[in-house]
Amino acid sequence: MFSERIVKSLAGGSAIRAMFEQGNILKAKYGEDNVYDFALGNPDPEPPETVIDDIRALAGKPGIHKYMPNAGFENVRSSIAEQLCAGSGVPYTKDSILMVAGAAAGLCIVMEALLDPGDEVIVIAPFFGEYRPYVTNFGGKIVPVPALAGTFEPDVPAIERAVTGKTKAIIINSPNNPSGAVYSEEVLRRLADALDSAEKRTGNTVYVVSDEPYSKIVYDGVRVPCADAIFKNSIIVNSFSKSLALPGERIGYAAVNPRIENADVLMDAMIYCARTLGFVNAPGIFQEIAARHMDDAAGLDAYRARRDALYGILIDAGYECTLPKGAFYLFPGSPVEDDVEFCKKALEHNIVAVGGTSFGYPGYFRLAYCVSMKTIRDSAPAFRSLMEEIREKKRKNP
Amino acid sequence: MFSERIVKSLAGGSAIRAMFEQGNILKAKYGEDNVYDFALGNPDPEPPETVIDDIRALAGKPGIHKYMPNAGFENVRSSIAEQLCAGSGVPYTKDSILMVAGAAAGLCIVMEALLDPGDEVIVIAPFFGEYRPYVTNFGGKIVPVPALAGTFEPDVPAIERAVTGKTKAIIINSPNNPSGAVYSEEVLRRLADALDSAEKRTGNTVYVVSDEPYSKIVYDGVRVPCADAIFKNSIIVNSFSKSLALPGERIGYAAVNPRIENADVLMDAMIYCARTLGFVNAPGIFQEIAARHMDDAAGLDAYRARRDALYGILIDAGYECTLPKGAFYLFPGSPVEDDVEFCKKALEHNIVAVGGTSFGYPGYFRLAYCVSMKTIRDSAPAFRSLMEEIREKKRKNP
Repeated sequence: MFSERIVKSLAGGSAIRAMFEQGNILKAKYGEDNVYDFALGNPDPEPPETVIDDIRALAGKPGIHKYMPNAGFENVRSSIAEQLCAGSGVPYTKDSILMVAGAAAGLCIVMEALLDPGDEVIVIAPFFGEYRPYVTNFGGKIVPVPALAGTFEPDVPAIERAVTGKTKAIIINSPNNPSGAVYSEEVLRRLADALDSAEKRTGNTVYVVSDEPYSKIVYDGVRVPCADAIFKNSIIVNSFSKSLALPGERIGYAAVNPRIENADVLMDAMIYCARTLGFVNAPGIFQEIAARHMDDAAGLDAYRARRDALYGILIDAGYECTLPKGAFYLFPGSPVEDDVEFCKKALEHNIVAVGGTSFGYPGYFRLAYCVSMKTIRDSAPAFRSLMEEIREKKRKNP
Repeated sequence: MFSERIVKSLAGGSAIRAMFEQGNILKAKYGEDNVYDFALGNPDPEPPETVIDDIRALAGKPGIHKYMPNAGFENVRSSIAEQLCAGSGVPYTKDSILMVAGAAAGLCIVMEALLDPGDEVIVIAPFFGEYRPYVTNFGGKIVPVPALAGTFEPDVPAIERAVTGKTKAIIINSPNNPSGAVYSEEVLRRLADALDSAEKRTGNTVYVVSDEPYSKIVYDGVRVPCADAIFKNSIIVNSFSKSLALPGERIGYAAVNPRIENADVLMDAMIYCARTLGFVNAPGIFQEIAARHMDDAAGLDAYRARRDALYGILIDAGYECTLPKGAFYLFPGSPVEDDVEFCKKALEHNIVAVGGTSFGYPGYFRLAYCVSMKTIRDSAPAFRSLMEEIREKKRKNP
């Protein structure tokens, strides 16, 4: 009676959101303080005071709440183009920038503007599971290529082999959700060369869609290389959800590399898609906030302290884990082969985690550490008892 | 190289947006004050002071900018359900309400949740042209049924005849864009009976999607009948763009009638679509604004004065026009048969209007009178000289 296609999809809902719901059930049963919920990448700091002050100041600005061109306010797009250009040297103008209602909106818009039915989009596993509908919505097909174990960096030769005559794009996401890996400039340059070779082989352009919502969330002096300076055919999709801690407000941008052939047609196509997919435009007041706070990073020091604390707890309890350089996720190896089974067992210890299988990378699990330091510290005995139980079971059934 | 489907669509872009661009070109040439731009339904008042005060007060509310459930904040959904229920008597609960990023988002989400490829959606012409992509995005087909000339009320017997085994939904939009018609309760009850008969004939449910962004913009003591009280299988889609004069902020809701069979499955489907279409959730701060300002109507008295002034100017100049009871549009008859040609001629007199053809109703043109009273008054000589030129031409070539 309703859409058969959609009703069928309901069964395979988001594993992240499902674990988030599981966490809420546990909290209702055992109390908020007794559940260690690492399911959702929902930044726990509030937005910076300067952002809140600016919202208050902008609320009464004449015209800010009205329709503007579908692409966004011109002054905002000019400002973002200038700031991006200052960072990467790519000659963006306001006509390169589309303001979007968050990275999810940006990715859907870019995918619709690029894809015809049957086109393939390469993703590097582990990857954010929602990439799947963002691509299949428009008849595209996801082609996952596993990252290298341990570093979670792209497996460049494997990606080159995965490019076919149907490949329209590759999504890269660094700092990565869920692994926290920050891809080095060296590996991205090798990837650029590999894509060049593949394009010569197939005769088709492979667009690089760089999904960068964690670009400001990096540690230990690491710099995120500018993907747009490395890949000529790049479209940057970014969001302020994480850097300004306002994921509920839905604000971001898409930047089309002006070196793309017919970049103006691509931008026209993206504006058309933004309009007809029902976005119309990105929220007005937050467009201005975005331009004014491009380089802020709310809660960065707190995130680093939490990363270190949770990493220490895991290592002490005997988990295998790479210390990530970015984002706010740890991606340890699952102590039992089936990560979904492991996450079920973790729930019995009031730990809420998401299995690597949902990120196309089985055998691992994701912990979002954008939670209070108290939750992290209090979780230590639970991680220990969980590991002990697993070891005990292995001893009994070797 | 980009999506062929989308690049092909670019040629047939939005006529409203195209005329809006034409207006901007004329303004650059002749000065803002010398162009009478009635192209875009962009409310000219600012939001009510109480709304701006609430934005300022809410900006610092802990948690308001974070991710919330995809359907929206629970307190907001409860409040909207209660307020809707008080108006219509329909027993909505928070689980009936999905907060959406404006009516465009709401319509896309509802259409995806309802439609399988090949399904038909009846619309009553004249209709907002963007309904077309909102339906075709998901493989659906628009079936326009012309309204009755003069009143622009639905032609009920024609609608009943248009229902086939493939009909999944009908979109009604009252107060109507572009005609300003407010459908009477009597005609809606006849429509409900006709849909009942048609459903018995075909064996399928026809969902009534009531797109109500102008529900608060009504004049002369007219009341908009509650579509949800009349149609059991109704989904209300509403927006605060017009009533609170903040179209750039993208906030609205979709309300699923709890009397729909398996209403909970439909809501789950809509939440899934909201997530996977890239909306994720409606902007957080404006969700709270929506709940607090359900019944406000910014600028209503000013709109009525403008309607009366522009209507008077048109009648004096010899145009044929029905005085509309709602929305902020006039929809006069085109003095020449081809309304697109008429709008081109109007541009020569610095009048920017949109032809009825873009609304599936040739022979008319739309004037959005949400502009300053000065623009309306100053436009009088232009409307007169335009009519004189047309009459002169008809005299010469009868």
